[in-house]
This record gives sequence, C-alpha cells and structure tokens, in this order.
Amino acid sequence: MTEVLSSAVTIARDLLRCPSVTPAEGGALQALEKTLQSAGFAVSRVIFSDTGTPDIENLFATIGEGRPHFVFAGHTDVVPPGDLAAWRHGPFDGTIEDGVLYGRGAVDMKGGIASFAAAALAFLADRGPAFGGTISFLITGDEEGPAVNGTVKLLDWAKAQGHRFDACIVGEPTNPAALGDAIKVGRRGSLSGTITVTGTQGHVAYPHLARNPIPGLLQLLAALDGLTLDQGNDRFEPSNLEIVSVDVGNPAFNVIPARAEGRFNIRYNDIWTLAGLKDRITATLQAAAPQGLAYTLDFKRDASESFLTHDETLIRSLSDAVEAETGRRPDLSTGGGTSDARFIKNHCPVVEFGLVGQTMHKVNECVALDDLDRLAAIYLRFLQAYFPRREG
Amino acid sequence: MTEVLSSAVTIARDLLRCPSVTPAEGGALQALEKTLQSAGFAVSRVIFSDTGTPDIENLFATIGEGRPHFVFAGHTDVVPPGDLAAWRHGPFDGTIEDGVLYGRGAVDMKGGIASFAAAALAFLADRGPAFGGTISFLITGDEEGPAVNGTVKLLDWAKAQGHRFDACIVGEPTNPAALGDAIKVGRRGSLSGTITVTGTQGHVAYPHLARNPIPGLLQLLAALDGLTLDQGNDRFEPSNLEIVSVDVGNPAFNVIPARAEGRFNIRYNDIWTLAGLKDRITATLQAAAPQGLAYTLDFKRDASESFLTHDETLIRSLSDAVEAETGRRPDLSTGGGTSDARFIKNHCPVVEFGLVGQTMHKVNECVALDDLDRLAAIYLRFLQAYFPRREG
Ligand SMILES: [Zn+2]
Ligand SMILES: [Zn+2]
Repeated sequence: MTEVLSSAVTIARDLLRCPSVTPAEGGALQALEKTLQSAGFAVSRVIFSDTGTPDIENLFATIGEGRPHFVFAGHTDVVPPGDLAAWRHGPFDGTIEDGVLYGRGAVDMKGGIASFAAAALAFLADRGPAFGGTISFLITGDEEGPAVNGTVKLLDWAKAQGHRFDACIVGEPTNPAALGDAIKVGRRGSLSGTITVTGTQGHVAYPHLARNPIPGLLQLLAALDGLTLDQGNDRFEPSNLEIVSVDVGNPAFNVIPARAEGRFNIRYNDIWTLAGLKDRITATLQAAAPQGLAYTLDFKRDASESFLTHDETLIRSLSDAVEAETGRRPDLSTGGGTSDARFIKNHCPVVEFGLVGQTMHKVNECVALDDLDRLAAIYLRFLQAYFPRREG
Repeated sequence: MTEVLSSAVTIARDLLRCPSVTPAEGGALQALEKTLQSAGFAVSRVIFSDTGTPDIENLFATIGEGRPHFVFAGHTDVVPPGDLAAWRHGPFDGTIEDGVLYGRGAVDMKGGIASFAAAALAFLADRGPAFGGTISFLITGDEEGPAVNGTVKLLDWAKAQGHRFDACIVGEPTNPAALGDAIKVGRRGSLSGTITVTGTQGHVAYPHLARNPIPGLLQLLAALDGLTLDQGNDRFEPSNLEIVSVDVGNPAFNVIPARAEGRFNIRYNDIWTLAGLKDRITATLQAAAPQGLAYTLDFKRDASESFLTHDETLIRSLSDAVEAETGRRPDLSTGGGTSDARFIKNHCPVVEFGLVGQTMHKVNECVALDDLDRLAAIYLRFLQAYFPRREG
C-alpha cells in the first residue's frame, strides 16, 4: 500500500509538471511512456492528423497476453489554466501543500492516470507479466479539444493492430463530492440543432411589405421549450432540452430582419434512439410552425447516442473495490456530460470511475494525496478481482 | 408656367450635381444659397456641432415681413448611391434622358426643394417682396444621418433669431405612386426598447446548476408579439409592434448562456401618448414574466410622439392646389416612417407633400421632369392662396 501511494503521487506530480494544454503533448505522454516501459509495457506513440485540426499525439501501451483484455482509457491533455494570478501555486508546478497536490489536470485526469499506472505497476510487481490476460492503456491528447484525432482513431488503430478489448474503465473524475460517490455506467446522448427562419427584410414603418421571421421562430422555440420528452427511468434522469442561443444580429431598430436563428441542445436518455429523437423534434416543429413559415432544421453532425453498460460483472467488480476501500457502495450514475466512453462503448463494455470532480476546469485544480492513494488501491483491487489467480 | 418648369428642372439639376452624401455639404447648400439670394432672400448658413457626430452645415433663408410666416422645410443631404455599377447614369451627374432626371436625391428631396424654390421665385417675380407676409426656407444637411445637428437645432436657432412660423410644408416624397396621391397630415410615433434577461451560465449537462435566460425572454417577447394595441382610427392605421432582433451570441451548443436580449420597435398612432404606451409595455411584460425572472426593460431615448395636424386651412389650401394641378384630391395620410416633421410640429402646424417616393434610397433614383414642373405649380398655387392679394 505504501508503495502504491508514493508511486501514484510521484507519477501524478511528474505528469502535472508537463504543460499539456490541448493540443500540446507537453512531455506528459513521454513521462507516462517512461513509467510504463520500466514496468515492461510495450508502448506505441501514435500521431493522428486531420484537415483543419492540429496533429495530436496519443499513446497505446500493452502488457500480458490473451483474454481477458482490460483497457484503461484516459487523456493527458488539459484545459488552459485560466487566470494565472488566481492560482495558489503555478498550474504546472506540481506543488504539494498540506497533503494536497495542485495543478491543472490534477483530477481531470492526470491524477486518475497516475493512480491506475501505480496500480498496474503494483499488480505486475506482484503477479509478473504472465498474470493471465492483457492490460492496456489507451491515452489520448485530444479529449478537451475537438476530439477528432484522439480516442476514436486510437480505438480503430488498436483494432487494426489486432487488439480486442473485453472491458474498459475510463478514469474521468466521476465523484461529485467524495471518492466513492459514483461510478458512471452509462451516459446520456447529446443532440444539437439549429433552426433558421427566413423572412423578407423591410422597414418597420411598412410591415406589410416585409415578413418578420422572429415571431415564427419564437413559436418554434416555444414548442421545443414546452416539450416533455420523457420522465426518465430507473437508470436515467429525464431527457432535457435547452435552447442555447437565439440570434438575429440586426443592429437597427427600424429594420425588420430577413433571418432569425435558434439553437438547442438535448441531453437524452436511453428511452430514445438518436433517430427517434430527431423524428420527434422534426415533427414538433412541423406541428408548431405557422402556415407558410419558411424554416430549416439542421442537426449537428457530432450527435452521440445514449448508452447504458450491461456488463454486471464489470460493474460489480469495480463497485466491490470501491466499497472495500471507501466503505461506501457507489451510485451507478448516468448523469453529467459526455465523455470518450461514448466512443469506447462501441468496442467493449465501459464504465467510468476516477477522482473527485469539484475542482476540474477551475483555478486551483487539486487532488488530496489520500485520494490518489485510495484510487490506486481501488484500481489495484479491481485488477486483482478481474484477473483472479489461477489455481496452481 | 414654362418659366417655373425650366427653373425647377435647372435648380434640381444643379443640386443633383452636388455629391452631398450625409454629412457632406457637397456644394448643394451653396447652390441653393446662390439661387435664393438672386431672388432677394436673406440667407444664413449655420453650422452645428455635437460630440460624437460630424459638424453639419444648414441653411436658413427668409424674405418678406410680418405674419403670416410660411416656412418650407427639407434637406439637401442624401443617402449613399450604393452600387455605382448598377446606376444607368452617374448618381451625381444630373443626366436627363427621355424626360426623366436621374440622380441620388432626385425625389428625396433635392427635387422637392428645387420645385419649391422655383415656385417661390415665380411668386416673388409676380408679387414682389412686399407680398404681405414672410416666406422662409429651413434646409438641413443632416436628415439622412443622426439628425442631431440639423432641423432641431435650426428650429431653435430660428426661434432665437425672432422667427415665429405659422405653417410649414415639408417637401419629402409623400406620393406612393403618382403626384397627387397623398399629403401627410401627421405621423405615427416611434418607440424602441430593449429587454434583457439575465440568468446563470452553466453546462447543458447540469441544467439544475444554471438558469437559462432564453425561455423567460421568449415568454416576454411572445407577450409583446401577441399584443393588440388598438384598431387604429379614421386618420391612423392600427399601431404596430415589431420584434426587430433577439440576440444571445452564445457560440457553444453545450453552454447555457447568462444573458439574452430582445429588441422591439413600435409605430403608434395618436390613440397613445408616449408615456401611456411605455406604461402599457411595462405592464405587459410584468404580467407575462415568470415568477422570479430577472429582466430589465430599457426604452431608447430617441422615441417620438405621434402627431396629427389640425390646421384645416393649411390642409385645405394644399389639397386644393394639388387637385387643381393633378385633377385628384390627395389622401390625407399618416402612414410611413418618421420625418423631421416630428420636430417642426412643436413650432407650428406642419404638413408634408413632395414628389413620388418609388425610387427614393434606390439605385437609379429619378424624377419625371413633368413631376418637377407640376409640383412647382402646386407649390405656387399654394403660395398664392396662402398669401392672398390684398384689396388694393
Ligand atoms: Zn477529462
Ligand atoms: Zn428625405
């Protein structure tokens, strides 16, 4: 235990000292590669490119042989530090004060990676490389950015290399207040859309010569806002639609504009398929549109499906490990935003468990050393349960 | 008549050749000053200044003595020509083709000024300077611009010089299709306002931690849009409210914004006072606002009151002159936008009559030479009726 502790803190501190704001690698993958190689992992650094986005470095590391194949997924890139003057310690200094480690990425999610790396190292030190299966790291540098040159491509790359995963834990900060609060066993889907109403520009003094697009748009948006999509179910909150912007951009008080646009986002549960939800929105607008209204509805292409992981063994093993270390049975949550788990679920059952999210993306992001230690212990217990010792 | 005709066309052509796009004087007031001085007018050129607006040249010219004091009001500034390539003839060339004079300002409203100048010259040639009253020109160079350094200040300046007006004709193009269609005997008022709703920014995945300002704004705007202010009356159309813009400016689909803004303009008739209308809008929003909604309502300071001119002698004299020249009794209209008449009505009864507005503010703005001629003849008849020959 003491060894796991000191190792998680040391690895976390090394990672936090790398300024890996998306899309910069910042030395973080390099540091992780060194740590994993020292434990015998075969490490691949893979760069992906796409037009209009920066090149991104990613890391895939693997050890062991055969099934089951467990993969830990995460990201070393971080959001910008924001107001530097407001930080208690430099965001890339890795300062420890009163048992707390400060730095951008402390909980989201270099700390989670460090805890899992420490757990894997301890596991391998105990069991050796012939532990009866495979452990891999799938680490991207593009989670906080456009996510184009990250997890999706790395999953495909691993598949092309012959890797088939049986289970995955994503190390994102899933605990709202204290370690042990919640495992994420699914995620809501996300669907965004834009409604554009076109009219005829004119002068406010001659409204009969113009067609104001705004009243029609208001009616469409009111219909969306009034929509009750569902009541949720035992695993998911009710689906929720938010109108996120309405824009006309007309600077003149005496001009009736030609065009008005409204934008919305829906976070939806597994009661809906993506296609079914699109149909519902389309039909709602059709029913609400005044006769003759000229409008278009465009769904954004980055929509994601909702999902719920049904691998009860994976969920129970992780829950048991959490309970053993924290004394609390974690909630099985599906709340919050999307994560790269939405891509991984197409390859294998995936759950998420990591540190406490309270300081993520904020000034003075930090993690208690105790939490790094206990998370490493949880991951270690999970690995021990997932790869049981064979009867000798 | 022939003399009036040739004179109106000549004066109009001279004015059209001056590129007096607001705020440029462009030689137009200089040309008018020369014309009026030659007929004996005392001409003052007055420059007004204000912080944040360009200096503007204006012209006041007067002839005669004592009451009644008639004033003709107008502007020599013009809106920009727009797409030069789309003009049949140069917008400041003053080209005549097939009995039509082309140029920016042909109808709005250098042509109207030219016709009145020609009428005044003919009247004075006939009656001499002791015609039994006073005729003045009140000409601004700031009607199409911010209107800060124009008519309002020139009216105050004239008052300070001791001038008291008994009646005014504004020479704006009041005829929708043909000369003789309409005299404007009043104008609707205009009231603009901005509604700002504030909420609390947040992530769409955590709507309970945010307060989206958009649904509340939609409710307020729907209440305004659903408002029936009045049914109009025998002189005015119903008052009309247009929502002219709605703006949030949130580029992110995953963010609930902190602020949403809606803007509206009302063109209202004489059933309302400005204060009464403001009260009605304020009360409508109060009644429509959901409990606890944080919003502000700000009325723009450039609001204008509606007005209706009650000087039946002025209206009848002008209508008679129009009918005598065109064979048609003009409508007494209060439609359309605002004009400088809204300022003049605080000094004396005011009506508006000028050319045909169809090409105003458009490419290939133009006026039929016949219309310039007939408008001059109408103005001349009006002056003859307004200043009857005294029994000698
Ligand atoms: Zn993260
Ligand atoms: Zn005008």
